[in-house]
Amino acid sequence: MTGRVAIIGLGPGDDRYLTREACDALDAADTLFGYGPYLDRVPARDGQTRHGSDNREEGARAEAALRQAAQGASVAIVSGGDPGVFAMAASVCEAIATGPETWRALDIAVIPGITAMLAVAARAGAPLGHDFCALSLSDNLKPWELIERRLEAAASAGFVIALYNPVSRARPWQLAKALALLSRHLPDGTPVIFGRAVGRPDESVTVIPLASAEDIAADMATLIIVGSSETRVIARDGRSPLVYTPRAVEKVSA
Amino acid sequence: MTGRVAIIGLGPGDDRYLTREACDALDAADTLFGYGPYLDRVPARDGQTRHGSDNREEGARAEAALRQAAQGASVAIVSGGDPGVFAMAASVCEAIATGPETWRALDIAVIPGITAMLAVAARAGAPLGHDFCALSLSDNLKPWELIERRLEAAASAGFVIALYNPVSRARPWQLAKALALLSRHLPDGTPVIFGRAVGRPDESVTVIPLASAEDIAADMATLIIVGSSETRVIARDGRSPLVYTPRAVEKVSA
Repeated sequence: MTGRVAIIGLGPGDDRYLTREACDALDAADTLFGYGPYLDRVPARDGQTRHGSDNREEGARAEAALRQAAQGASVAIVSGGDPGVFAMAASVCEAIATGPETWRALDIAVIPGITAMLAVAARAGAPLGHDFCALSLSDNLKPWELIERRLEAAASAGFVIALYNPVSRARPWQLAKALALLSRHLPDGTPVIFGRAVGRPDESVTVIPLASAEDIAADMATLIIVGSSETRVIARDGRSPLVYTPRAVEKVSA
Repeated sequence: MTGRVAIIGLGPGDDRYLTREACDALDAADTLFGYGPYLDRVPARDGQTRHGSDNREEGARAEAALRQAAQGASVAIVSGGDPGVFAMAASVCEAIATGPETWRALDIAVIPGITAMLAVAARAGAPLGHDFCALSLSDNLKPWELIERRLEAAASAGFVIALYNPVSRARPWQLAKALALLSRHLPDGTPVIFGRAVGRPDESVTVIPLASAEDIAADMATLIIVGSSETRVIARDGRSPLVYTPRAVEKVSA
């Protein structure tokens, strides 16, 4: 009897972003694992058991799910957004890499979801319409020096930059420092999008020039997109502006 | 009477990646525009009209959809993957930016979808588990020199790289040149994933070291993910390997 682990992306916010594949995978599971607020988004199904845990316990959650699957269970680990982007899919792979050989025989399925940057970009227009990168601002798992190097490389090469995990209670200064660094490589007027709680009733999307971006509050529910020097804003009377990065780049700037 | 344009992401492959929001938006439209093969994926609804066009006519398609919406229609433009990633959402914004003032008064909604790199990453494990970028290899709309600069910046700063539009009949040499360039910045053993037609019956996913990647055929249905020096492979007996990029980076390499 081979157990199964499905790592399922719910998308951000409510269930509007749930895919058919994710819905089917939730139906097929007999045991659910996940961060409590993500589990709360999944309607109860008869006969399913649930194991909620704290957001910082990703490694322990992955191991608990793999142990249960190794006993033959069909386990689902639910994740907000996409499980492959700064989330549980890597945790499960890490646990398999260092865990017992039997875990390699399990059926592992990653079910993609709408990741936050796609949802925020959609709300704003098409800021990710050309080359872009996604970078976590958390220096819990990598040196701050490396984050700075990546921000510089991305901005000076003309990538639009999506910033995940911009701020937490334990990391209050990193965002301001990152924005200051980006200001040295990008024009003051570069559009910056703060998307908070997209897909939830308290959703907010703010578009602001880079020079004023430090005035906008952000938290762990915020995803920030910093444009490139090509990114443009279309003002609209009585409507939120459209932010987009054109598909074409005419010439290479210095 | 205000018209509406919804730019809808269907995800790659079949309808497994369709979100509830995309499904609702398709139901609400009275006119559909899109590249023929994408339109073919949308089941017919009573009273809807359809306008299929060639893949290279994005600008003309956007303008036709906006003209129809300006007459009060509820128009949907369907897109494979996510419409905001190298796709129709930017085309629509470009058309609005240069079109008649009345187009700015339209209700514009972008409905995100699973973009190809998320679907391919999910099939392989978690290669996008840490910082990554997405780059189009097409030099139809930007100078090749800029593509090279971005590849170098991304690889030397340690981003995993998703390559969109790697090859077309008119662009036969770009992929080999890009892989050769990346080989100068990354170890020979760096895992590379070729995901072709993910979500379709003829889907294939190949994992190969960078040094041998030039031997793998690619086409316009292929999305390629090139790992960083941190990306690892877990071999599994009788199963495809798991490719993942760990969430943590211990130290900064030179």
